[in-house]
Amino acid sequence: MEPKDKSKFPLVVIAGGGFGGMQVARKLKDMPVDVLMLDKHNYHTFQPLLYQVAIGSLEADSIAFSLRKNFAGQKNFHFRNTEITKVNPEKNTVDTTIGEISYDYLVIATGSTTNFFGNKDVEHFAMPMKSIPEALNLRSLILQNIEEAVLLNTKQEREPYLNFVLVGAGPTGVELAGALAELRNHILARDYPELQKEHMKVYLVDFMPKVLGAMSAQASHAAKEFLKGLGVEVLVSEKVESYDGNEIKFEDGKSIRTKNVIWSAGVMGVVPKGLSKDIIERGNRIRTDGICRVEGSSNIFAIGDVAAMITRDTPKGHPGVAQVAIQQGNYIAKTLMQLINGEPTEPFKYFDKGSLATIGRNKAVADLGKLKFQGFFAWLIWMFVHLVSLLGFRNKIVVFINWTLSYLTYNGGARLIIRRFVQEAVPEGHSPEGDG
Amino acid sequence: MEPKDKSKFPLVVIAGGGFGGMQVARKLKDMPVDVLMLDKHNYHTFQPLLYQVAIGSLEADSIAFSLRKNFAGQKNFHFRNTEITKVNPEKNTVDTTIGEISYDYLVIATGSTTNFFGNKDVEHFAMPMKSIPEALNLRSLILQNIEEAVLLNTKQEREPYLNFVLVGAGPTGVELAGALAELRNHILARDYPELQKEHMKVYLVDFMPKVLGAMSAQASHAAKEFLKGLGVEVLVSEKVESYDGNEIKFEDGKSIRTKNVIWSAGVMGVVPKGLSKDIIERGNRIRTDGICRVEGSSNIFAIGDVAAMITRDTPKGHPGVAQVAIQQGNYIAKTLMQLINGEPTEPFKYFDKGSLATIGRNKAVADLGKLKFQGFFAWLIWMFVHLVSLLGFRNKIVVFINWTLSYLTYNGGARLIIRRFVQEAVPEGHSPEGDG
Repeated sequence: MEPKDKSKFPLVVIAGGGFGGMQVARKLKDMPVDVLMLDKHNYHTFQPLLYQVAIGSLEADSIAFSLRKNFAGQKNFHFRNTEITKVNPEKNTVDTTIGEISYDYLVIATGSTTNFFGNKDVEHFAMPMKSIPEALNLRSLILQNIEEAVLLNTKQEREPYLNFVLVGAGPTGVELAGALAELRNHILARDYPELQKEHMKVYLVDFMPKVLGAMSAQASHAAKEFLKGLGVEVLVSEKVESYDGNEIKFEDGKSIRTKNVIWSAGVMGVVPKGLSKDIIERGNRIRTDGICRVEGSSNIFAIGDVAAMITRDTPKGHPGVAQVAIQQGNYIAKTLMQLINGEPTEPFKYFDKGSLATIGRNKAVADLGKLKFQGFFAWLIWMFVHLVSLLGFRNKIVVFINWTLSYLTYNGGARLIIRRFVQEAVPEGHSPEGDG
Repeated sequence: MEPKDKSKFPLVVIAGGGFGGMQVARKLKDMPVDVLMLDKHNYHTFQPLLYQVAIGSLEADSIAFSLRKNFAGQKNFHFRNTEITKVNPEKNTVDTTIGEISYDYLVIATGSTTNFFGNKDVEHFAMPMKSIPEALNLRSLILQNIEEAVLLNTKQEREPYLNFVLVGAGPTGVELAGALAELRNHILARDYPELQKEHMKVYLVDFMPKVLGAMSAQASHAAKEFLKGLGVEVLVSEKVESYDGNEIKFEDGKSIRTKNVIWSAGVMGVVPKGLSKDIIERGNRIRTDGICRVEGSSNIFAIGDVAAMITRDTPKGHPGVAQVAIQQGNYIAKTLMQLINGEPTEPFKYFDKGSLATIGRNKAVADLGKLKFQGFFAWLIWMFVHLVSLLGFRNKIVVFINWTLSYLTYNGGARLIIRRFVQEAVPEGHSPEGDG
């Protein structure tokens, strides 16, 4: 059933139901356009809380929200559970897993995925955490490896199962490190009487000289102190050389025996085929002009993590954060209507609302414009911001209850191994010893 | 790490953390025994609400509870996340996926799995719903098939994707039929504007002449009326002949084109290898004497769905319901201590507390001893009983909130396709046309 039937309105195809795509569709409500959203998942993922799914503190369903349910009742909205495989700008169509779809306007909001920077060994053996299935795999792996450790008799044998190495000390790495340290400090010995807290180690590694490199010096310093206080070993200016599933090696010769490497050291845009390679910027992002329009096109736009708006003011584009995607989503909905109506447009301006990161119970760091503060109040702000941003009334209550109980009992989270994680076999012609 | 180290107490190995196994471990708290529970899952599953996971009304984590977390603090309790592969009664050991484990007393509480009665075609193509992964697979399949239907243009093409055939009209089938009918009546056209309620059909099939055959005539009659009121087509005295993934055929020549066959027509015990075939009763259950002791053994016991206590009073054993497992769990903990202490034992007596089944909003049937009633009050009782039985304070609240919101909005449930369900290829040498 072709959703454009009988309508004479222009069709806006939105590729991706993340923060950006959602916002475009929402703002086009009641406008004289038809909206068709395509996403390979039938839900929106609230990525900032993925790490709490990975650690078993929140169930997946609380940070996901059905895209159909969210837009039920928006008359000009249609959804297809599919993935764009190719854009055909000359025909104004996209190829998808369910066939070719025509558009009048295309908004590419496909987001980003984990960037392993070409290191095939790391890509094969380390765990990414950019989607709900990936977070659930990680949850299973963490719990399976603790179960394995219970069966082993010596420190030497147990070590690789209980060493957790998080590569990338951005907000994701920092928050996951804090959560793992809380698991170690409060839950490990209680749930696994065979083990002691000292058996488990959490390492946070970055090749840059500080944690939370994108935040202020105060935030970075405080975060590092908070992490140390929780017992996390912070290793900065440390570049990963290889990982074979058993031992991670760094360029300076250091190494850690571990079965748990979690990679949040970089992202890259998810760019559909069919676009000129000349317009792909660093980080696999699509170059756009100041009104989010893909260079060389009149009716294709790109927003959020997959876009690099290269202008005099933003020579490197914008940071890959939810706020940029949301603001560009709002902006492009307005600008599209202006273009359709032949009205003048104004260039996009990003308003930086600031950054937050939490590090375990009671502690967070906040850079809100000139206001920079760390500690308990920042933690309250962090919780408030995440709760109100979460989609769906049910999700807000359920997350609030989970957090409250975790706070009161020091023992939140279900920690279930629903589907066992099984490492895929090493691809043929690929040396597990690592040369990449 | 062998949990029996340093202890001189007898070791009670409990195979399975279901309703029965949990109860044994709980009642052995503070007793002079060591308890080792083995389960292939690291959580207890509240099976009565599995159908709500399958329909997308409840998240999996709400009806599961970590076994380690539940017994954290019980000093004589240890857990291993493994499966028994074989019992070696002559050596007093069990083989498991993590090696051989010795026991002084063994309680087999491994429960039951879906019984396809030898029909390999049905087993391959129909969906079982006895575990959380199975319920999640079913959830994905239901949602994927509705998404498929959206893409098709004719009634003829859509039909198999939107026909739901539930085989087995016990409580599971009846409750799932009610929930699917509610989805059809209140959610389908809202979430999928391309579809109308009339496009979807729910069939409930049983080879017996009535639904809820194990309950009273009043309950059975009322349930059938409730189901009809919701638009469910009830087909009784209808025996399945074959199912090839596209069409289900019955022995009387009737057939239904469907991609969705959910099988809850029977269960069979999950019996580990190593026991004599002579003691396996109908339904693959282990024959025990009146004190739950496996026939021919002095220190192996079986309780719950996997057991058939064959005595003069119970020539066919007990029904496969949670109450039997719970009461036998309680009983065997007490009886084990009596045996260990050389005290006299008393035979097990089952106290039938009655049965409940719900059929959509506001409606349920209840047989509580001589008290038999149907409708709204039965529905309140059903909810109350399930809420208080659910393990964990968090789970109780989260389920309560989900139910309240679903009740108020007619639109509960997240309905996420987290992992796509992919039908496995037909095994070699197996004809999908079906001869079994």
